[in-house]
Amino acid sequence: MMRTRPLKVALLGCGVVGSEVARIMTTHADDLAARIGAPVELAGVAVRRPSKVREGIPAELVTTDATALVKRGDIDVVVEVIGGIEPARTLITTAFEHGASVVSANKALLAQDGAALHAAAEEHGKDLYYEAAVAGAIPLIRPLRESLAGDKVNRVLGIVNGTTNFILDKMDSTGAGYQEALDEATALGYAEADPTADVEGFDAAAKAAILAGIAFHTRVRLDDVYREGMTEVTAADFRSAKEMGCTIKLLAICERSKDGASVTARVHPAMIPLTHPLASVRGAYNAVFVESDAAGQLMFYGPGAGGAPTASAVLGDLVAVCRNRLNGATGPGESAYAALTVSPMGDVITRYHISLDVADKPGVLAQVATVFAEHGVSIDTVRQQGKDGEASLVVVTHRASDASLTGTVEALRKLDTVRGVASIMRVEGE
Amino acid sequence: MMRTRPLKVALLGCGVVGSEVARIMTTHADDLAARIGAPVELAGVAVRRPSKVREGIPAELVTTDATALVKRGDIDVVVEVIGGIEPARTLITTAFEHGASVVSANKALLAQDGAALHAAAEEHGKDLYYEAAVAGAIPLIRPLRESLAGDKVNRVLGIVNGTTNFILDKMDSTGAGYQEALDEATALGYAEADPTADVEGFDAAAKAAILAGIAFHTRVRLDDVYREGMTEVTAADFRSAKEMGCTIKLLAICERSKDGASVTARVHPAMIPLTHPLASVRGAYNAVFVESDAAGQLMFYGPGAGGAPTASAVLGDLVAVCRNRLNGATGPGESAYAALTVSPMGDVITRYHISLDVADKPGVLAQVATVFAEHGVSIDTVRQQGKDGEASLVVVTHRASDASLTGTVEALRKLDTVRGVASIMRVEGE
Repeated sequence: MMRTRPLKVALLGCGVVGSEVARIMTTHADDLAARIGAPVELAGVAVRRPSKVREGIPAELVTTDATALVKRGDIDVVVEVIGGIEPARTLITTAFEHGASVVSANKALLAQDGAALHAAAEEHGKDLYYEAAVAGAIPLIRPLRESLAGDKVNRVLGIVNGTTNFILDKMDSTGAGYQEALDEATALGYAEADPTADVEGFDAAAKAAILAGIAFHTRVRLDDVYREGMTEVTAADFRSAKEMGCTIKLLAICERSKDGASVTARVHPAMIPLTHPLASVRGAYNAVFVESDAAGQLMFYGPGAGGAPTASAVLGDLVAVCRNRLNGATGPGESAYAALTVSPMGDVITRYHISLDVADKPGVLAQVATVFAEHGVSIDTVRQQGKDGEASLVVVTHRASDASLTGTVEALRKLDTVRGVASIMRVEGE
Repeated sequence: MMRTRPLKVALLGCGVVGSEVARIMTTHADDLAARIGAPVELAGVAVRRPSKVREGIPAELVTTDATALVKRGDIDVVVEVIGGIEPARTLITTAFEHGASVVSANKALLAQDGAALHAAAEEHGKDLYYEAAVAGAIPLIRPLRESLAGDKVNRVLGIVNGTTNFILDKMDSTGAGYQEALDEATALGYAEADPTADVEGFDAAAKAAILAGIAFHTRVRLDDVYREGMTEVTAADFRSAKEMGCTIKLLAICERSKDGASVTARVHPAMIPLTHPLASVRGAYNAVFVESDAAGQLMFYGPGAGGAPTASAVLGDLVAVCRNRLNGATGPGESAYAALTVSPMGDVITRYHISLDVADKPGVLAQVATVFAEHGVSIDTVRQQGKDGEASLVVVTHRASDASLTGTVEALRKLDTVRGVASIMRVEGE
């Protein structure tokens, strides 16, 4: 069964993930060979700084010329773990042109240019796999694309960014404010020096675009994903959440509309009930809920980042792509046949939790309630609290379109009796 | 891209699962065709009672002659949802001989004869897929076999039987005894009239054999799996568990030994800490923890049984097998190259929680402690309780081999001062 000519792998990038990929390829070489049906050989490693010592990687494999490496012509699989748009995009395209299949962990690139890259892969009859791009080690792309291929997915709801989950979990458990929790995340290495991509939701939005595309067999671009970061979540929001039996998570939510004709994808902080399984996802872990017609509710949980977990996902793809190559076949490519409409955030049906600072005089509640009614938004609960002559109103709505809810808030801001809107947060996960 | 000649599917069995498979094949026909790249057609349905009205299935497709159906020669995929050993085994083998690939949900058959069936599939160059055989809709076989193909799995720990989880959950939440909880499960349709396969752990043991085989790339037969049912778990056990901050679950545990050279597979009730994610798996849900070198801890959660969830898994396999057929390829077959030793239960390293009824006189604890020491079992905690002249001792051990622990209990039974061993339960999930 075993053929002896090895499959050749070019590794682009040798940072936290790449070095783990190289390490496992060496230490698990026999297992990989047995599982693939042929040995795999690290044929070259493209890096930016060749002087850095890389344990276990022979110096003669290291090059700074990634383009020459992917153009060699004898490479079977290119593993791209550089990240970012360029030069990754050009290198991947060049790899297809020169006969290689590609395994990538690049969520930003896939979210932005997935369709073009899939088209290039198909044109050249090659594979493009990217399990590691979403939620690290957690198998998600393959289950959505293959295990649920006979089902109809209606919703994907998940915590797909470990940094922000660490921060929110810390705020929840200690009562800390955002900055304090961020500082701790940075000190412990969970947040990068510039945390923008995580805390502003860009990273989660890229993953949401990829997940929505696969789940709904529809092209969903990064620009289609509504995105709201979590930098404005306060300790007071967590206190309000607790009063409701909730916690706050940064969620990526991809939903099919009730009539089935359109989909939405969004990333924002939201209150979810403590009884919801996602509420108990601690620290930097990720977890994704998938709801489908036949399977019902499934959850996938695990480490969403880190060198070894991400390498595990990369190597799973590498084995699959190598097997396909030996079979002379390719795995499932892009599936966008459904081509559903991707609707804007205003069409999303959700609930709001709104805290208002209001004048402490009779008739305020009636005024506020009238505004909700005028926008067709039904109120679930109202809580009034007096504090030093001022008063606060906490309103939780029933489900309504995000556009109606936004319109309601705008109108509330214009009321003389409303001194300010202290916070607005969506409520999810019922 | 789309070819017009349909792939032909023969459905063996049209009960709870089969009727859902047929329904979804009809209602989702366009989606399935788009995802496969060719239409799929239900070519025949083999049943035992042809007179039963089957909504949505044309009468001319229904036959009682399953053998003739799989021998037709024009069938691309046989979907076997009959269950049991025969006639399922012969029908599957016949299907391979007559050119069809097979999708099965038959855990008992796969656990008993998986190796022979895989060999038959390989001999004829056909696929044998069976995601639905373990944990219903939860993608487990594919993640273990494909997503983690580049990783090294060290442990699979899971709740893989919904009936027993429903009963144990009920006992935990209401304080009910086993019989009372079983009666409720039966009344609600969660337990069958003869619940033996579930409550004695046969069903879970079959799943453990399948999971261990795939996780460790080693043949693990049903006979290799240690099996202990949960009919002797009492309300008192749950009270003891609560005192330890634990609950009780029927667990399937597949482990690689520390030196990596051998594996074990077992099914038994065990105490697990309430903080363990498996502790909060409610009702008839299933959940499986997978621990591997690189990925770390992953959890998969969802409905473990039921017509529609199981059909979801069957159809995911059907799509994969159809795609393989169009590609002229087959998916991954049996992977048993590691051929690790499957060790007996005595070699398992675990902890015991033991309740002893003892004479209420000085020196008893010293005697008991000596027995543990003589068997090389280290004691973690001891709790003494007096009750009406009698006394009880609750001992929780550190980790030791199951053989040492069994030996300890045997020796304890022989002590004059030990009136009886009230309960023994393993403690897992640290």
